[in-house]
Amino acid sequence: MFRVMRISAVVLMGVCLFMASNALAGKVISNNSEWAKDFPEQYATWKETSKSDQIKDMLKEKPQLAILWAGYGFAKDYNAPRGHFYALQSNQNTLRTGAPIDSQTGPMPTACWTCKSPDVVRMIDEDGEEEYFTGKWAKYGEEIANSIGCADCHVSGTAELAITRDYAKRGFKEIGIDADKANANELGNLVCAQCHSEYYFKATAWTDSKGNEKTAKVVTFPWQNGVSAEEMETYYDARDFKDWTHKISKAPMLKAQHPGYEIFTTGIHFKNGVTCANCHMPNGTHNVSNPLENMDDTCLQCHDTSKDVLKEVVQTKFERKEELMEIAMNNLGKAHLEAGKAWESGATEAEMAAILQDIRHAQWRWDYSIASHGSFFHAPEETLRLLGNANNLAQEARLKLAKVLAKHGAAGFVAPDFSTKEKAQKLAGVPLKKLVDDKEAFRKGLLKKWGKSAVDAGKLDPAIKKGMSDNTSYN
Amino acid sequence: MFRVMRISAVVLMGVCLFMASNALAGKVISNNSEWAKDFPEQYATWKETSKSDQIKDMLKEKPQLAILWAGYGFAKDYNAPRGHFYALQSNQNTLRTGAPIDSQTGPMPTACWTCKSPDVVRMIDEDGEEEYFTGKWAKYGEEIANSIGCADCHVSGTAELAITRDYAKRGFKEIGIDADKANANELGNLVCAQCHSEYYFKATAWTDSKGNEKTAKVVTFPWQNGVSAEEMETYYDARDFKDWTHKISKAPMLKAQHPGYEIFTTGIHFKNGVTCANCHMPNGTHNVSNPLENMDDTCLQCHDTSKDVLKEVVQTKFERKEELMEIAMNNLGKAHLEAGKAWESGATEAEMAAILQDIRHAQWRWDYSIASHGSFFHAPEETLRLLGNANNLAQEARLKLAKVLAKHGAAGFVAPDFSTKEKAQKLAGVPLKKLVDDKEAFRKGLLKKWGKSAVDAGKLDPAIKKGMSDNTSYN
Repeated sequence: MFRVMRISAVVLMGVCLFMASNALAGKVISNNSEWAKDFPEQYATWKETSKSDQIKDMLKEKPQLAILWAGYGFAKDYNAPRGHFYALQSNQNTLRTGAPIDSQTGPMPTACWTCKSPDVVRMIDEDGEEEYFTGKWAKYGEEIANSIGCADCHVSGTAELAITRDYAKRGFKEIGIDADKANANELGNLVCAQCHSEYYFKATAWTDSKGNEKTAKVVTFPWQNGVSAEEMETYYDARDFKDWTHKISKAPMLKAQHPGYEIFTTGIHFKNGVTCANCHMPNGTHNVSNPLENMDDTCLQCHDTSKDVLKEVVQTKFERKEELMEIAMNNLGKAHLEAGKAWESGATEAEMAAILQDIRHAQWRWDYSIASHGSFFHAPEETLRLLGNANNLAQEARLKLAKVLAKHGAAGFVAPDFSTKEKAQKLAGVPLKKLVDDKEAFRKGLLKKWGKSAVDAGKLDPAIKKGMSDNTSYN
Repeated sequence: MFRVMRISAVVLMGVCLFMASNALAGKVISNNSEWAKDFPEQYATWKETSKSDQIKDMLKEKPQLAILWAGYGFAKDYNAPRGHFYALQSNQNTLRTGAPIDSQTGPMPTACWTCKSPDVVRMIDEDGEEEYFTGKWAKYGEEIANSIGCADCHVSGTAELAITRDYAKRGFKEIGIDADKANANELGNLVCAQCHSEYYFKATAWTDSKGNEKTAKVVTFPWQNGVSAEEMETYYDARDFKDWTHKISKAPMLKAQHPGYEIFTTGIHFKNGVTCANCHMPNGTHNVSNPLENMDDTCLQCHDTSKDVLKEVVQTKFERKEELMEIAMNNLGKAHLEAGKAWESGATEAEMAAILQDIRHAQWRWDYSIASHGSFFHAPEETLRLLGNANNLAQEARLKLAKVLAKHGAAGFVAPDFSTKEKAQKLAGVPLKKLVDDKEAFRKGLLKKWGKSAVDAGKLDPAIKKGMSDNTSYN
């Protein structure tokens, strides 16, 4: 856990020397706008991430997703990511976080805020990690007010980079990295990796100061065996961990979050010492964005190839990924639906066990390979290897299913069409209208209260709140 | 066809200017040793390719191959390539070229010599392309005496690079390259691409000077639509072309030869202007070899990374390819065997049509992706994309087969074990002992006569012949 101290300016220098290996010092300044005076350029470029505000409904783009995630929140709503400026709004608005009516109602735990706001750093500091990870998401609705910003990555009030989450430090330790001893270049990856990594919510029993037994859902990196898809799969399998039971196939599923750091380390840019910051924050801009938008400051710093050639190379990588990804997703979708039919037709647990394991592993590998930003570029070969692998396992499941279906008189079964979001969500049993109605009620009620409360308490700059476009759409 | 002229030294310079767009001039000097006096260093380094003389039986390494190629020559015998010095010996010794007993007997056509010897350039010059491509392989047994050497790539007696095969020029033209106008750098790829490309033997009717109607089997690059696996597949499909009918599955198969140039052009080294010669013939050595053996002169000319890091990067590329390749080969093998069982069980042509097409396409994509030297390095992403694709099609065939097998009462069929060369060749119906006995008789008889005849006629340096190890083994 963080050891955070209130310190006066007078002793700051001495403390900073003393705390060279502890990246965090002083009160957490979670209100991003408070940093503007000391760091005007950084603040201004951070605000530019607000330009990335368009909602792109990925369930419309890739309807297979609603089948693959049936029974899980992502089947309800899943958009392409926007700028850091909008990370918190996206988290509040998504159907996945549901429509709580007070601080006690779900569906999600507090852990769902963890990567979205510097207020998380403040709350962990104030309440302690165990308390922070206990309870429902809505518990911190009034506190978590700022989107990803300054105190997520920096020692408050300074330009010093910091690993602000202890669970990340513990994760790095699993793979032999002492984050407290990392140099500035290494931190150019690790600071980002605090959030751009795979994690799960590990149920952790603890006892509060009053002697009450509680269970925290602690964000945990599953890196004990290593960071490859197979090594994490082994970790989860050994613990019989599942994120959810698939609604159609009944497979015990894993949801990859965004193992961006992990897959990046398998690619050639990482191996050549390039960091996230080199390409996504060139010249110290805090407008974290696509390097292709600033090629002079990114690619061309190392490559003496023309922009057009480089763009074409990137485009080809993208298309190769798309091709194998579509194949894998289509076959995974069919595998779930064929497994559903097998259950309906009277298949037994024994007949289905190996099939469900294939589906679990297939989908995990698919998800690991593409869930993070730009894996097709960060690690094109690893991405293609995993997609090939994922599809093979999906097809193996389907081959076994063909025999089970034949045995139970359903040899002729053909999976129904899931080629649009509407069709796929229907098959996945998503009650979209009710979810949207409830969410809108939440947004007009509790969410508005949270925002007002944060502004009134001085935790959020009202100008930031006013500057936010809200082009959310659920259909 | 080549226009080759006997010219005196006096007019040579003028002719060379006149023939600036025609790379070949003068009598073809096919005897490699005749070049030694004028090009001693080049000759000496060419001879060093003789160090690459080990036989590696790929059917032992990858027993699936014997299933995949059942009914075709490669199921009999397939070794990893050796140095250029041994290319002709490998061609003469392989069971694939069979055991002719005279110049009229098969099984292979003359075209099988085409990439193995500078004597081919001479024979095409002397007999014309149509005559050269007509008749059985044994027809030229006494003529084709030198292994891949000087006159394959150079204007005879000079250092000038040359496209010595007209069919290659025609192929290049299909993709917009006028080889006669290529500069030295471009020739650093194109000269190699004459042989390191995909081709097929196109049956071509012609009438000889005596009015006899004949059929030539002309080496032809299937590049009319482009050089990608899919573009060539479309070319072959449009012509209903097949290399053979699979012995087990009855699928109309394509055999990729070695589309090395084609897949190289999809990779990053080609896109950055690196040529075959840059890495495989650094500093002008003619010991064409693995660039990792001379990293100071190859990789490190551009990369400022340590040798160990680069070797590790290459090794990882290799392992990724191996992984997806093994998966694809195993499933292709099963698809053939399951198709064989489906026929046995009474499947109809109509039931099998789509299955056989899937198998044809799956195996073509697999073969294209890995048949050439080092595709895993030359084009790692394209290789993985195609292997993923190939495996998916093999699995699609198997899914369809599961239904056909169930319909015909063979739902429980499990493909027999093909995990050793012996088991796989048995399933493929390869009569190995008879093939080897016949081959040995050929090697002791006709082949010896060919060699003696070539030496006696001054077409082959006896010292070269004596310097050849013969560690051939068929078991």
